[in-house]
Amino acid sequence: MALKNRASIRERLLDAATDLFYREGVTVGVREICRHAGISKRTLYQKFPSKDELLAASIAEQTRSWHERFTTGSQDESTPRERILDIFAQLDEVAHSHLWIGFSTAFAVINGVGADHPARASACQAIEQLRDFFLLRAEEAGASDADLLSRQLMLIFSGASAHARVREVRSQDSPAKEIAGMLLDSAGLLSTARR
Amino acid sequence: MALKNRASIRERLLDAATDLFYREGVTVGVREICRHAGISKRTLYQKFPSKDELLAASIAEQTRSWHERFTTGSQDESTPRERILDIFAQLDEVAHSHLWIGFSTAFAVINGVGADHPARASACQAIEQLRDFFLLRAEEAGASDADLLSRQLMLIFSGASAHARVREVRSQDSPAKEIAGMLLDSAGLLSTARR
Repeated sequence: MALKNRASIRERLLDAATDLFYREGVTVGVREICRHAGISKRTLYQKFPSKDELLAASIAEQTRSWHERFTTGSQDESTPRERILDIFAQLDEVAHSHLWIGFSTAFAVINGVGADHPARASACQAIEQLRDFFLLRAEEAGASDADLLSRQLMLIFSGASAHARVREVRSQDSPAKEIAGMLLDSAGLLSTARR
Repeated sequence: MALKNRASIRERLLDAATDLFYREGVTVGVREICRHAGISKRTLYQKFPSKDELLAASIAEQTRSWHERFTTGSQDESTPRERILDIFAQLDEVAHSHLWIGFSTAFAVINGVGADHPARASACQAIEQLRDFFLLRAEEAGASDADLLSRQLMLIFSGASAHARVREVRSQDSPAKEIAGMLLDSAGLLSTARR
């Protein structure tokens, strides 16, 4: 019971923090996070040594859910090409949900905080993990240059992430999926090719 | 003389703040900015109502320099295609300089602060301005779908901006220019076509 309570306070804190980081930005104060989670500052600092560590944990948790949802599943029936395009197809869907916080905040953190901020490591890890997913699929499909293709796809994905909250850009459909398709064509990943 | 002094204090403040936003992140404190600029807090608040306004001014100033440097010049001799590709060719050069702060911080601000943060407007304006540059060049060159092309180019540019400080990604050449070239080909902007 004690263990369960510990877990649920941590989760409640993470949920509240993620929600506020998303709505108010990463500069949101500890006091506001505590109020939103309904816990005391003392309890927060028992779970996380600092707000920066809480942000790091929030990014790690959000990108983990993201990877779980988008890079697993339908592995048997889909071609590597389909699995890659699936990610881009779902970008628009998740753009306005919390799920997006994983990557849009990851890039915000990387470009908006100092080099030794604890959340940088979470953010870089999430990006590396997605790059690895692209690389593995590209290799499976026998891409002409799997390394290059994975870097190209990562660039498109990052651009779409960066746009996630630019209202002027988001108001139109993202061209990310079409560009990704063009890059897959160019690397020789045909839509009919199965593993 | 009084006017000149006012201008130079503002500039000194903006330079110091931009330097710190770049190195320490947008969460850097007012006290540190004042120390770095060698001015008092009182003077800072005489020039800018808040740190958020200072960040907004820093982004506006940096993206203004950026646009001046990259979207003007050689207008008579270059084709629209060359002018577009020039921007991507120079991305790697500026990636580790302050010039980059304009856009990498713009995206960090858009994805990392609340919707009513004063720096959001500066950031969105810079993005719209670059999008307009791409759109005008695409129209000049008679692109098959100038609007789509400008959105595609903006996506690539944003991806490269988001990567500006991801060390793992930056350690290799950015594929942005090659993807941009592919998109220009696909929109019918041939390398030989002059205005």
